[in-house]
Amino acid sequence: MSNILVINGPNLNLLGTREPEVYGDKSLDQINQELTDIAKENDCFLEAYQSNSESELVNIIQEKSKTTDYVIFNPGAFTHTSIALRDVMLAVNVPFIEVHISNIFSREEFRKKSYFSDIARGTISGLGFKGYELALLSAIEYLSKT
Amino acid sequence: MSNILVINGPNLNLLGTREPEVYGDKSLDQINQELTDIAKENDCFLEAYQSNSESELVNIIQEKSKTTDYVIFNPGAFTHTSIALRDVMLAVNVPFIEVHISNIFSREEFRKKSYFSDIARGTISGLGFKGYELALLSAIEYLSKT
Amino acid sequence: MSNILVINGPNLNLLGTREPEVYGDKSLDQINQELTDIAKENDCFLEAYQSNSESELVNIIQEKSKTTDYVIFNPGAFTHTSIALRDVMLAVNVPFIEVHISNIFSREEFRKKSYFSDIARGTISGLGFKGYELALLSAIEYLSKT
Amino acid sequence: MSNILVINGPNLNLLGTREPEVYGDKSLDQINQELTDIAKENDCFLEAYQSNSESELVNIIQEKSKTTDYVIFNPGAFTHTSIALRDVMLAVNVPFIEVHISNIFSREEFRKKSYFSDIARGTISGLGFKGYELALLSAIEYLSKT
Amino acid sequence: MSNILVINGPNLNLLGTREPEVYGDKSLDQINQELTDIAKENDCFLEAYQSNSESELVNIIQEKSKTTDYVIFNPGAFTHTSIALRDVMLAVNVPFIEVHISNIFSREEFRKKSYFSDIARGTISGLGFKGYELALLSAIEYLSKT
Amino acid sequence: MSNILVINGPNLNLLGTREPEVYGDKSLDQINQELTDIAKENDCFLEAYQSNSESELVNIIQEKSKTTDYVIFNPGAFTHTSIALRDVMLAVNVPFIEVHISNIFSREEFRKKSYFSDIARGTISGLGFKGYELALLSAIEYLSKT
Amino acid sequence: MSNILVINGPNLNLLGTREPEVYGDKSLDQINQELTDIAKENDCFLEAYQSNSESELVNIIQEKSKTTDYVIFNPGAFTHTSIALRDVMLAVNVPFIEVHISNIFSREEFRKKSYFSDIARGTISGLGFKGYELALLSAIEYLSKT
Amino acid sequence: MSNILVINGPNLNLLGTREPEVYGDKSLDQINQELTDIAKENDCFLEAYQSNSESELVNIIQEKSKTTDYVIFNPGAFTHTSIALRDVMLAVNVPFIEVHISNIFSREEFRKKSYFSDIARGTISGLGFKGYELALLSAIEYLSKT
Amino acid sequence: MSNILVINGPNLNLLGTREPEVYGDKSLDQINQELTDIAKENDCFLEAYQSNSESELVNIIQEKSKTTDYVIFNPGAFTHTSIALRDVMLAVNVPFIEVHISNIFSREEFRKKSYFSDIARGTISGLGFKGYELALLSAIEYLSKT
Amino acid sequence: MSNILVINGPNLNLLGTREPEVYGDKSLDQINQELTDIAKENDCFLEAYQSNSESELVNIIQEKSKTTDYVIFNPGAFTHTSIALRDVMLAVNVPFIEVHISNIFSREEFRKKSYFSDIARGTISGLGFKGYELALLSAIEYLSKT
Amino acid sequence: MSNILVINGPNLNLLGTREPEVYGDKSLDQINQELTDIAKENDCFLEAYQSNSESELVNIIQEKSKTTDYVIFNPGAFTHTSIALRDVMLAVNVPFIEVHISNIFSREEFRKKSYFSDIARGTISGLGFKGYELALLSAIEYLSKT
Amino acid sequence: MSNILVINGPNLNLLGTREPEVYGDKSLDQINQELTDIAKENDCFLEAYQSNSESELVNIIQEKSKTTDYVIFNPGAFTHTSIALRDVMLAVNVPFIEVHISNIFSREEFRKKSYFSDIARGTISGLGFKGYELALLSAIEYLSKT
Repeated sequence: MSNILVINGPNLNLLGTREPEVYGDKSLDQINQELTDIAKENDCFLEAYQSNSESELVNIIQEKSKTTDYVIFNPGAFTHTSIALRDVMLAVNVPFIEVHISNIFSREEFRKKSYFSDIARGTISGLGFKGYELALLSAIEYLSKT
Repeated sequence: MSNILVINGPNLNLLGTREPEVYGDKSLDQINQELTDIAKENDCFLEAYQSNSESELVNIIQEKSKTTDYVIFNPGAFTHTSIALRDVMLAVNVPFIEVHISNIFSREEFRKKSYFSDIARGTISGLGFKGYELALLSAIEYLSKT
Repeated sequence: MSNILVINGPNLNLLGTREPEVYGDKSLDQINQELTDIAKENDCFLEAYQSNSESELVNIIQEKSKTTDYVIFNPGAFTHTSIALRDVMLAVNVPFIEVHISNIFSREEFRKKSYFSDIARGTISGLGFKGYELALLSAIEYLSKT
Repeated sequence: MSNILVINGPNLNLLGTREPEVYGDKSLDQINQELTDIAKENDCFLEAYQSNSESELVNIIQEKSKTTDYVIFNPGAFTHTSIALRDVMLAVNVPFIEVHISNIFSREEFRKKSYFSDIARGTISGLGFKGYELALLSAIEYLSKT
Repeated sequence: MSNILVINGPNLNLLGTREPEVYGDKSLDQINQELTDIAKENDCFLEAYQSNSESELVNIIQEKSKTTDYVIFNPGAFTHTSIALRDVMLAVNVPFIEVHISNIFSREEFRKKSYFSDIARGTISGLGFKGYELALLSAIEYLSKT
Repeated sequence: MSNILVINGPNLNLLGTREPEVYGDKSLDQINQELTDIAKENDCFLEAYQSNSESELVNIIQEKSKTTDYVIFNPGAFTHTSIALRDVMLAVNVPFIEVHISNIFSREEFRKKSYFSDIARGTISGLGFKGYELALLSAIEYLSKT
Repeated sequence: MSNILVINGPNLNLLGTREPEVYGDKSLDQINQELTDIAKENDCFLEAYQSNSESELVNIIQEKSKTTDYVIFNPGAFTHTSIALRDVMLAVNVPFIEVHISNIFSREEFRKKSYFSDIARGTISGLGFKGYELALLSAIEYLSKT
Repeated sequence: MSNILVINGPNLNLLGTREPEVYGDKSLDQINQELTDIAKENDCFLEAYQSNSESELVNIIQEKSKTTDYVIFNPGAFTHTSIALRDVMLAVNVPFIEVHISNIFSREEFRKKSYFSDIARGTISGLGFKGYELALLSAIEYLSKT
Repeated sequence: MSNILVINGPNLNLLGTREPEVYGDKSLDQINQELTDIAKENDCFLEAYQSNSESELVNIIQEKSKTTDYVIFNPGAFTHTSIALRDVMLAVNVPFIEVHISNIFSREEFRKKSYFSDIARGTISGLGFKGYELALLSAIEYLSKT
Repeated sequence: MSNILVINGPNLNLLGTREPEVYGDKSLDQINQELTDIAKENDCFLEAYQSNSESELVNIIQEKSKTTDYVIFNPGAFTHTSIALRDVMLAVNVPFIEVHISNIFSREEFRKKSYFSDIARGTISGLGFKGYELALLSAIEYLSKT
Repeated sequence: MSNILVINGPNLNLLGTREPEVYGDKSLDQINQELTDIAKENDCFLEAYQSNSESELVNIIQEKSKTTDYVIFNPGAFTHTSIALRDVMLAVNVPFIEVHISNIFSREEFRKKSYFSDIARGTISGLGFKGYELALLSAIEYLSKT
Repeated sequence: MSNILVINGPNLNLLGTREPEVYGDKSLDQINQELTDIAKENDCFLEAYQSNSESELVNIIQEKSKTTDYVIFNPGAFTHTSIALRDVMLAVNVPFIEVHISNIFSREEFRKKSYFSDIARGTISGLGFKGYELALLSAIEYLSKT
């Protein structure tokens, strides 16, 4: 049975409570619950964490990495600024997928650079909450093959 | 009943016949067949085209756009060079998703610029053939809501 | 009697059928007919071609160049990407004017670079269909002097 | 009856007196007279000003803007350096066309940047004195429609 | 008793007469009057000048500098283009504050470069007419200490 | 009665204890007390927070945003590095002013880029502790109008 | 017996008919015939194709690659613009040499970037028609060793 | 007796537990113990801290700076991203040396920029754990002279 | 008898009155007198103008150009900003030498770009008032040869 | 009878003695002998020099240029750094061809800039020792025509 | 018994005779003697060379490389300009450490680029003469392990 | 009695023998003789050296610096490439003037960067042989004052 870790970065705890017309009306908890259910149906165990703190995210990834088979990672604003998070992903060497709810390519110029895309298995962006689900399906398929 | 158009750009006709250890051993026909089946199960009609010619792709999109509800688009090398294809997507104004089989962010510098990402609904890259399937699921969900 | 060639690049066949509030409600055929009439009144012969294909445009220019005295050229998206078309204009060495219907300077950054402006006699942009007519008047005046 | 303002920037008072083989042998006065005549034939009133002084041009445009319907503007060297003139055009909000006698794209690199092109209705460059006449025809057509 | 000089650059004479919903409905005269009153209450003498001419501004600053203790300076468009004004500020060596009515950082890219910010005591931007008043309060406090 | 939030970023807790000749000899507590007094006189309630931690600042802004009408924000070093703080300001959508004690334009090149200036109402920099007071006056005036 | 494929890109069909003082007076057919003769003398079979169409070149290379041991490739203008052709050369993985008749380093800046040089065995440029012959000699020597 | 502070940034707590063939098989505790012993032999007192948190590092440096004579600093990923840490080093004004275990110049382009090198006394990189020891020897020599 | 024109740009009228330890204690009038004397000794007529106004300088050069054989030009701050002055020098086509009193290469980055150096006969910078005299000697020698 | 000069730059004296699997097992002497033989068969006289010293190469080219008809030049590392060698080639004005044994386009970024390519007749790179021979054949053909 | 080569580049022969307050008062000979002594104590043989000539340094490294186990290299100004020296270090493939006496990161921008750092084992800069000693200790430790 | 050193860099020994219509028909020896005569008349001793070797120039400057009061320096191509020569000028700290015979600003882009201009007293370029004489006059005046 595989273990999947879902990591969400800064300000993603606000999902559902602000700008629902843009980001949808589900809270992060609801999304995580849905992902947990899908994981369970596919005989996977899924744990989800969110933090506004770069160091907490580094700590979680360090701690969980030994018992994790795959990471679904939405680094939020840290996508463009955190080499510390890139380094921990390089260090723990667990396959991961980068997810963004909104289309980062149609926003400010500085959001086009990601410290994760080149070391991730792949990237899904712009597809809303559905992006997490698709990432999970890709993870499950990947884990079923290895 | 929604119509979905799958467009593949240059050299994607070689899928399955070369470097199967990298790109998998399915041919583009097999992939298209699987996508057609999934579409059918979801009450959608799916048509797929591949061409090595930029102008043929422009022509197909111009012609099909009136009867198409969603495009799944892997522009291949044209991702980084074709403003003509960007322009036709802007002109026909059909929602589309950009798909890449390999991780374009871990390859040559010039593959990081896309003429499509900022006008697509979203992007999926690096997830192999599975990327097409995930794109189709996203399309079906999108079409079911609109 | 002088021969004038009007060349339109990719997606300009869509004129009149889409976004008439932006691009006006005339089709390319109507525009070409009006240009032909003005040419005739000025004792010039005018032929017009449109293609979505870079190679077709190269071929047309190669073939027609020996019997052409002036080219009115709207390269569309190829303005910013086609060195092959630049090369054929350099090779056939026929005077030409670059025309754009919309103002390319108020759009995306990448539309500011043209592979034609520095080798054209001049450039007209942003003046809608009227731009073609003004280009033709300039051509007629030029040809009347040489 | 519409009012059209023709504005010429620094050194354009030298037209006709220097390098006639390049710039033609008409003086700016002659050009302005011809434009005035064409305007009159089309029931428009045309006034023309030239100055080597950025501030005089700003002052003229501020003063004349309330009674002006359209500006034909050749900013000369100020094209590439004057944000004050850009600002006055933004402030008075009168439609204008940017004209250059020579082809600014085939000269020094720094002549490729214009502070006016993105806010002008359009641009005509490289077509000699004829460019003013074409700009006037475009203005007349525009004013006849609004 | 300290002397304060208020300098406004090109197009700021238009304040109050255009786009009052953006720039407010006070004229520059009214603003200057209010500033004069505040200065007087604080035992300072305040003089204000506006010009659309770079050279007039250079001349004024040269002439007034010997009897001026502080300059409140809104260079308008010259902020981004005038090294001559930078040089005169360096030469006369009077402390000054740079003021902008609108937020220059949320406008065109070229408005982000200022030839004054690094040599000014400080900068206030985006706070409307209030910015002048705040600058004056800062000047008065500064002068009271020296 | 309006609520104003004063946020100070990393190392600003050192104010008054180091380099008093540069930064003045007031501690941050004294500054905050003075601001509180001015706010009270103007019937506003003012709360002030300082943290060296990006995530603590994100958390404070998330929590306080619902009861805050205006933020006075000196992000310190985070001005140039924190997209997470930019994102929280975008998300909570409370008007704010950016304040810097020293002149950031006369220091290292990398201090010229701010992730906040383009989304702030305005910016005050280089005016020492007085900058906070001026920002507060601007806030009070803004709140009195809305 | 080895098979050598000679591929010429856009506008190279004009060789010999235009600017013979620059490009020499041989037609492409004559050049190809001479290359065929040299190949035959060295027990190699040589086929030559020219096209103005990127897609035709992609198709030819895809089709011929299985029976080709070496490619002599002058991509013409596509040197600087076609990632699709780069991709097909990467995909078919046949050794190739890049040839340019004129010296691409003494022309426009944009001709200095090649999408082929880093993946070719080598490059020959500036040596006129002789460059093809030298490329063929290099190919024959290479094939004789493997 | 001098006090030396050893500061290690994010992910350096993983030393010895991962990729021992690259980073060696010593844990950070062992390294710190060895450094403590060398310091003691040289009549210095050495304290070592590691944190994955930028703010914790800022806090430690603020607190310890008054009783510290020299800092040996490996900022890890913060080398390239943390102006807050640069600012605290500037504020506390304690001499420090920058140490990197691996050669940061032979890795990704973004690792070449350091926010510390220009304000450090010096830099040692690429020499493995030995780098800390050499830095300590340099510190001891420096302290013995001042 | 040759005519030499000495042109000084903005703020150079301050010479001698400010910062004499840097710029020397001669006024511009004294310098001009000395130059006039040297010219006279060499049978040349010398006239000198200074203006803070770009347009006045353009006007002077236009007017004087027909009776001027050589220009000694210190454009001051206009060196780096005025294309209008470059254009008038190109238009009147009188040989000129560019002079700077201070070393423009050891000052701000933006002072390294000159709009005049590439079209001047030569440049003298950093040699103080002596630079004008040397320029004059060079002019006299040049005029004696032509 | 023509004289051909073969010049090899720094470190090319190591050929054959190091990394023979990469650079082949011939020494530079052997290569030069083979080139001499080919030259002799074609009634040319060939002399070859190698030096690790830029000034020695400048000296040789200055001395030999009067009796040299053609230079075959592999500048080695000086390709990317020596303007002195570029200048001597410009000064002596002897036709030359630039040769590189390895493919300089598939190595470090800084090897892509050459100070010679734009002034050479042509360039051959990546073809190993064969490159010298091809360069010689090109030289012989060129000399036979002039 | 290992052989260590110490190489110093241009102007380092001036050590001790100029600016002793900056560079210390030891001559290069004294430094080399101290290093020789340390090497001897550790059973290593050390030879030191200095030259102002790039080619002499290339020659020395070529000659000594076969009998050298480690190089301590301070390339001086050649750090930023000599690809020939980079190439010889790549060719001879002896491990080396790059040493700089002063902190190259706190000087001119162009001193930040090194042609050696990415291929060296490591770099030590800014630590004065002590840097050589530390480099030697690192070399001795490295050699004792291999 | 002051000592003046004239240093000429690579290829300047060719003066007078090549392209006399461009560089004049005087040899470097003649120029040096004329300079020596002028120096003598002004009670100065002048020595002149030319070398194509960077290291020889470094050596000469090191040796002569103690007995030299002023250097007239034309570094030729080393202007743009030699940090070693910059370093020796910084080390010996003798005032010097940079001279170029031709106008380096009207040639290739890479000739616009000088490693000497910002540390020289001043620069003279484009004035032919006369430039040396003017530099000498400036040196004599400078030495007469100190």
